[in-house]
Amino acid sequence: MADPETLPEAERLEDDAYALSGETVRAAREAVEAGDAGALTALMAPLHPADIADLLEQLDEGARHRLIDLYGHEFDGDILSELDDSIREDVIAALSPAVLGEAVRELESDDVVDLLENLDAPQQAAILEALERPERLAIERALAFPEGSAGRLMQREVVTAPEHWTVGEAIDFMRASLDLPEQFYHIVLVDPRFRPVGHVTLGKVMAADRVTRLADLTEPSFRTIPADQDEEDVAYAFNQYHLISAPVVDASDRLVGVITIDDAMIVLAEENAEDLLLLAGVGDESISDRTLEIVRRRFPWLLVNLGTAILASIVISLFEDVLAAVVALAVLMPIVASMGGNAGTQSMTVAVRALATRDLTGSNAWRVIRREVGAGLLNGLAFAVIVGIVGLIWFGMPLLGLVIALAMVVNLVVAGLAGVLVPLALDKAGIDPALASGTFVTTVTDVVGFFAFLGLAAVILL
Amino acid sequence: MADPETLPEAERLEDDAYALSGETVRAAREAVEAGDAGALTALMAPLHPADIADLLEQLDEGARHRLIDLYGHEFDGDILSELDDSIREDVIAALSPAVLGEAVRELESDDVVDLLENLDAPQQAAILEALERPERLAIERALAFPEGSAGRLMQREVVTAPEHWTVGEAIDFMRASLDLPEQFYHIVLVDPRFRPVGHVTLGKVMAADRVTRLADLTEPSFRTIPADQDEEDVAYAFNQYHLISAPVVDASDRLVGVITIDDAMIVLAEENAEDLLLLAGVGDESISDRTLEIVRRRFPWLLVNLGTAILASIVISLFEDVLAAVVALAVLMPIVASMGGNAGTQSMTVAVRALATRDLTGSNAWRVIRREVGAGLLNGLAFAVIVGIVGLIWFGMPLLGLVIALAMVVNLVVAGLAGVLVPLALDKAGIDPALASGTFVTTVTDVVGFFAFLGLAAVILL
Repeated sequence: MADPETLPEAERLEDDAYALSGETVRAAREAVEAGDAGALTALMAPLHPADIADLLEQLDEGARHRLIDLYGHEFDGDILSELDDSIREDVIAALSPAVLGEAVRELESDDVVDLLENLDAPQQAAILEALERPERLAIERALAFPEGSAGRLMQREVVTAPEHWTVGEAIDFMRASLDLPEQFYHIVLVDPRFRPVGHVTLGKVMAADRVTRLADLTEPSFRTIPADQDEEDVAYAFNQYHLISAPVVDASDRLVGVITIDDAMIVLAEENAEDLLLLAGVGDESISDRTLEIVRRRFPWLLVNLGTAILASIVISLFEDVLAAVVALAVLMPIVASMGGNAGTQSMTVAVRALATRDLTGSNAWRVIRREVGAGLLNGLAFAVIVGIVGLIWFGMPLLGLVIALAMVVNLVVAGLAGVLVPLALDKAGIDPALASGTFVTTVTDVVGFFAFLGLAAVILL
Repeated sequence: MADPETLPEAERLEDDAYALSGETVRAAREAVEAGDAGALTALMAPLHPADIADLLEQLDEGARHRLIDLYGHEFDGDILSELDDSIREDVIAALSPAVLGEAVRELESDDVVDLLENLDAPQQAAILEALERPERLAIERALAFPEGSAGRLMQREVVTAPEHWTVGEAIDFMRASLDLPEQFYHIVLVDPRFRPVGHVTLGKVMAADRVTRLADLTEPSFRTIPADQDEEDVAYAFNQYHLISAPVVDASDRLVGVITIDDAMIVLAEENAEDLLLLAGVGDESISDRTLEIVRRRFPWLLVNLGTAILASIVISLFEDVLAAVVALAVLMPIVASMGGNAGTQSMTVAVRALATRDLTGSNAWRVIRREVGAGLLNGLAFAVIVGIVGLIWFGMPLLGLVIALAMVVNLVVAGLAGVLVPLALDKAGIDPALASGTFVTTVTDVVGFFAFLGLAAVILL
């Protein structure tokens, strides 16, 4: 009953419509412990590869390896694609070379590329060796594009037609083809030099007469994507222009592949997760990382934070005599800094988000800055009244209330200003604002908060 | 030259591959100021509706209204769909009823629903009146589904075929149809009671012979979505199972519409943005909100933060005599709290993210908790050594170094624990962990940080 891996009432966490059920995880764990390959295979047969990947992530290392031993020969390549990076390496290492080779040979070329990118050299070599020569060459060509580029994201299999073809010719051609891609949504029209000139949705082809020219059915939303374009820009274009698929071209505008919306959706989700984690001072961390890995990833951010905290302490140390004279200052001191830090984080997060979605630009930056300062001033005045009264009532010192009220106004205005200027400046300098804004903004609000509060106290109270 | 709306070197902010260029925004502003409708229309003609929406968002209110007056009669309904909520109301109010009616009549039913959802009653009525009766009824039916449900997200236009049809019959049927949807990717097979039993991608239909039965071409990934399902779950299913489109069914499993991946992608992006903003203590804020709107949205979060900051101050006030005796404590005090707050935010963000992606569940919660405590302990020990030495060197008091070192270990362990337990508890209680975790976690780390540091100081130093 007291299974240490399971929280009481664990079901409550999983009352979601999809996702692996806690029941399934428990049953799989029991089958693994009993060494019952039949029960395990029966349990896993109906699961989607994405859910099997989630199951592997939920188990601890020992149980995961025993599961792979029991289930290994049925191992689907798509499971590997769905796994978290940290778990994936472990699973690949645990698979026998024969099972790994079989699993990888089933995958589409863009999935193999995605798999290889995050593996170390020996594992990469093992997988490449398992592939047939033509596919290996195709994958090595894809890996020649820079990491995070459209060339890595695209699939090479594209359905094309000469621009002068009719609907009937296209349908006959496709019926005769033996290796059409698993999923495709457009026929790309190409000129004699294999440059894409337009594309036609399959729905339009279906609905048209056989004699209709494909060129008369092309979509106005057609856009090509350069193979060296950053995948973040690709995801932005898909989201902004509601693209379903877009041809990828090389430097001489020739067609080299196609990117589909499902790939763009994955990139978008990854970019959003990255921004969220970076803003919190966590790099590329996942819930399945080991303890030492977590420590290693978080330590540098905490070290930077220690530096800024010491800076704030130095500011405080300038006012030791004031603090010694009025101990109430030490009691109230964190309030101003904490409010400034929060207000700065609010402005900063809105600004970082707006930069990522390209809604904050040079054209409206001044307006946004003015608005942030205005909002900081208004909230500052409101909280000045509140904390002024708190200070007055708590310590019975009207001048102390005045000091904290004035410091509050100063710090909330500065917080609004820093919250938008810091991300703008980092973006201009070519640094990801999500990466470094938080540290700078809270340093500013801490230093200004303590300096304003204790400095005003020195002038007004002493 | 000194245009107050434009930052110097504004171009640097916009060296992105897509998005509206600063150049275009400036040219549009000039054309609006000159009242030059011809130049404005020429400038805007090549722009995608999403880019025109961005342009309207970049302008201030006066310029926006003048642009609408000059350009109004050409106003495309898709521009309305792409606008930010706050700007959209303003634009709809500025459009003449005739132009608004024309713009809305062009839209697909799901886009009209999306438009109506966020408008106030008089604007909703104005738009519904502009529509023809059948479309108005269809939209009122969609609005009968709960907000944020699959029923609101779906489009009602679906291409269906009886399950016994062949490829040839399906193609002939589509050629004869006059009103196929603008975009579709699957033919949904339905039984005689109009319940979806499978679907076939258009690519498979294209590639097959006319005599092939559609039922032999269905996709294994087929899933139906209940109309009352939450759109967040829909987006999860699309992302998890790589769906392209999925039929929506009512309570008796009958087909009522279809959701496509582009709709799911929009929901996913919105959910991610919402989590990011909620974690930072900003509600549903956008860069185009007015100052008073910003103040109104942020004030409640800052008020909650003030409450927790006062709580921390009360903890400090318990130790006024210790602070009066050793002023160095006031100087170093913020370091422990700041490090705890940062470490807690790190753990919490990873946990909130993992809950959103359903990677943190009852099955692995204990393992994650143990790992967070372990990581907190290790980082706590590392930083204990560092701050111990800093305290010793700065103030020359070995015992002060010991106090801050011990407090650091305590607070980083507590931070790791609170960072994962708080989101888990909120999720169990049915509260969005992104909404409230931040406040609780930093309250815990502030209170524990100050209490541990000053309490240990009272015991060890006095």
